[in-house]
Amino acid sequence: MKLLEERIMKDGIVKEGNVLKVDSFLNHQMDIDLFNEMGKEWKKLFAGCNINKILTIEASGIGIACITAQHFGVPVVFAKKSQSINIEGDVYTTRVQSFTHKKVYDVIVSKKYIRPEDNILIIDDFLANGCALEGLIDIAKNAGANIIGVGIAIEKGFQPGGEIIRKRGIRVESLAIVDKMDPTTGKVFFRK
Amino acid sequence: MKLLEERIMKDGIVKEGNVLKVDSFLNHQMDIDLFNEMGKEWKKLFAGCNINKILTIEASGIGIACITAQHFGVPVVFAKKSQSINIEGDVYTTRVQSFTHKKVYDVIVSKKYIRPEDNILIIDDFLANGCALEGLIDIAKNAGANIIGVGIAIEKGFQPGGEIIRKRGIRVESLAIVDKMDPTTGKVFFRK
Repeated sequence: MKLLEERIMKDGIVKEGNVLKVDSFLNHQMDIDLFNEMGKEWKKLFAGCNINKILTIEASGIGIACITAQHFGVPVVFAKKSQSINIEGDVYTTRVQSFTHKKVYDVIVSKKYIRPEDNILIIDDFLANGCALEGLIDIAKNAGANIIGVGIAIEKGFQPGGEIIRKRGIRVESLAIVDKMDPTTGKVFFRK
Repeated sequence: MKLLEERIMKDGIVKEGNVLKVDSFLNHQMDIDLFNEMGKEWKKLFAGCNINKILTIEASGIGIACITAQHFGVPVVFAKKSQSINIEGDVYTTRVQSFTHKKVYDVIVSKKYIRPEDNILIIDDFLANGCALEGLIDIAKNAGANIIGVGIAIEKGFQPGGEIIRKRGIRVESLAIVDKMDPTTGKVFFRK
């Protein structure tokens, strides 16, 4: 998606260690107009797919998922990253490794909100190693729901997550795929 | 706000210990149409206030804040609950006590995204003891920003947060104020 790639080139900051900081518009400060354009794009890509629910994970996925949900006219469910006393009863749960935060955490969704009859679009801000995404896929599959596909804002194409998940037969639509980043020049190279 | 009160009466579940579960539409599964009506209501309440930024806190505030932001045409900044390696450099930080999770955590916002010239609307899903909200207010005040007011979906009027913050001279617009809940009958009583 040209608009997102241009924005990454303009405002993204490349750091050592394959870090791409986009916190001025994507995952700390959030540009809602941009999110609406992203939502429109996914709606075009997944037109006619009968999506009835969007699944995401706290925290940075939530804003993108909610704005996108308006284009599909569906509710959003966000997976929680640790047990809350206000979620009780039956939950789907899976363990996820975070490279960013260097820890393992539980991901939880109440069984009430993902059902076998659901046609799910999974939305998240980043796809790198794919651990969080695999957790969401596990949860949806455990619920017996139908995963229509995955919408990612920025995929780090040089990390293995995207390939692993596509090889599982799951459709992944990343709006920008970064193939290379150079922390010395700050340049970002996108997949054609 | 009648629509939100009706929804709480229909789908909210009252539990022992002053717990009001609204996770079917507000803070786990999210009803985006309802959020849009809430956003419209705050836009009416804060009309002409020149708000240029919405501040919220992860995770449950984000969806409501993003949908509301569309009605104001402004970006959203969400405060993060612990240090992330992807936020670096200068941050505003404050400590917040969570009664729900029975712990103390750091709340962080990058100094780049709250500026002295900002006119801020703070949005959150719940106001009970007011700890998270006081944290956001501290951060905005430390930044020298102007706090126009606070928009809360559900205020627990029998807990002290709302009164404490209004006494500080800050305008708080809660769309539903619960004065009493009865876990045996499941009834919720709203402030007139």
